[in-house]
Amino acid sequence: MVRNSAAPALEADLLPAITLCGRPLDRYLRALEEFHGWRAPGAVIGGFMVDWAQASLPPGLEADAIVETCHCLPDAVQLLTPCTFGNGWLKVLDWDKFALSLYDKKTLEGFRVWLDLTKARAFPEIYAWYMRLAPKKALPLEVLLDHIIRAGRGILSLAPVKITALHGKKEKGATAICPHCGEAYPLRQGATCLSCQGQGYWQGPGIRGQGSGLSWLESPAVYEKNRNVWSQAEG
Amino acid sequence: MVRNSAAPALEADLLPAITLCGRPLDRYLRALEEFHGWRAPGAVIGGFMVDWAQASLPPGLEADAIVETCHCLPDAVQLLTPCTFGNGWLKVLDWDKFALSLYDKKTLEGFRVWLDLTKARAFPEIYAWYMRLAPKKALPLEVLLDHIIRAGRGILSLAPVKITALHGKKEKGATAICPHCGEAYPLRQGATCLSCQGQGYWQGPGIRGQGSGLSWLESPAVYEKNRNVWSQAEG
Repeated sequence: MVRNSAAPALEADLLPAITLCGRPLDRYLRALEEFHGWRAPGAVIGGFMVDWAQASLPPGLEADAIVETCHCLPDAVQLLTPCTFGNGWLKVLDWDKFALSLYDKKTLEGFRVWLDLTKARAFPEIYAWYMRLAPKKALPLEVLLDHIIRAGRGILSLAPVKITALHGKKEKGATAICPHCGEAYPLRQGATCLSCQGQGYWQGPGIRGQGSGLSWLESPAVYEKNRNVWSQAEG
Repeated sequence: MVRNSAAPALEADLLPAITLCGRPLDRYLRALEEFHGWRAPGAVIGGFMVDWAQASLPPGLEADAIVETCHCLPDAVQLLTPCTFGNGWLKVLDWDKFALSLYDKKTLEGFRVWLDLTKARAFPEIYAWYMRLAPKKALPLEVLLDHIIRAGRGILSLAPVKITALHGKKEKGATAICPHCGEAYPLRQGATCLSCQGQGYWQGPGIRGQGSGLSWLESPAVYEKNRNVWSQAEG
């Protein structure tokens, strides 16, 4: 399905002629290398997605964003809009769907853009890459990027949407001090923080009871969790 | 508890003398304004957290990151390390705990840094802000930032950790085409994608059956979900 090489290399004068959110594409590609680490194909498609959604909104509107996958697309949004993961204007669903929405936070009206497989089928290299029908090394990155940049919006669809969930600020609720680890946590999580409930992702000597006066060695539940504690002592 | 004004404004010559991950603090503050939208106190503390964790790792190590809150801290990691949300090197737990870990992805050994309330109590303005004991307007941003920058690592603790979960790449598994919306989704989610199972965050005319040949109007579950469909038609 994948033709090797196929299209000629992208002409040097074509790149600056393409813009994403008002900025030259080659500047976006450089920003991608700097921020994302490489010109990931998904993040390049994502640039066209953000550009189309943004261009469909009223000029000057600072939209909020929802992205339907953790892979690549969040970085396209973070590079091309004021929305970041840490400022709360970007929300990410771990759905592995190649789609995103930009919307007006006041009216909740906006646009969703997605990789449209019926259109992508007309670009067999891109389709094969996205659906993982061919081994990665069968299609060099430069060739795939060339196809993606030539395709532009040609593999995407856009539709108006009204956002019905996930919008607005996350309410923090009451803050408490965990009696096991002594750190602040949201009271709604229970009598101790989630980490001290056994959902933690780490082992180490850092857990110490403070509110309760217990050290972590004296707390059976935490001790159990830390039995094979990493040997290095706290600095 | 909050003393208004308190410390004198940060001397202009103090700022460039402080570095975070080898870069002058004032450059970080400007990058924060550009990327995050403002010099959010949590993101400034986050800069000191990332700096301390990074400095504790072997020089030159490109660490992976885990952050324990969606608020502010993810942007400190994204600005000061190669880890971004979209490239997969940064994982975020929605735990509302002000802590992060940087670790060696090969050995899984690293360091966790957290806001240590026992130490923060010695900085009453910062403690009151973090625990929301005082109204926001009681403490102007510039004064709070001044206290935070003077405190530096003084409100933090660091401990070695061994990462036991969340590390490594997310496996994608098999991809399928949703019979309702015609978009690609991970087969593990079921017979249709999560959005078509009713977990969607939007209403609009964009849902159309493709694999099945059904339009969204003909799919009872999806029709129900879209009954109050936004009036604007698909472009």
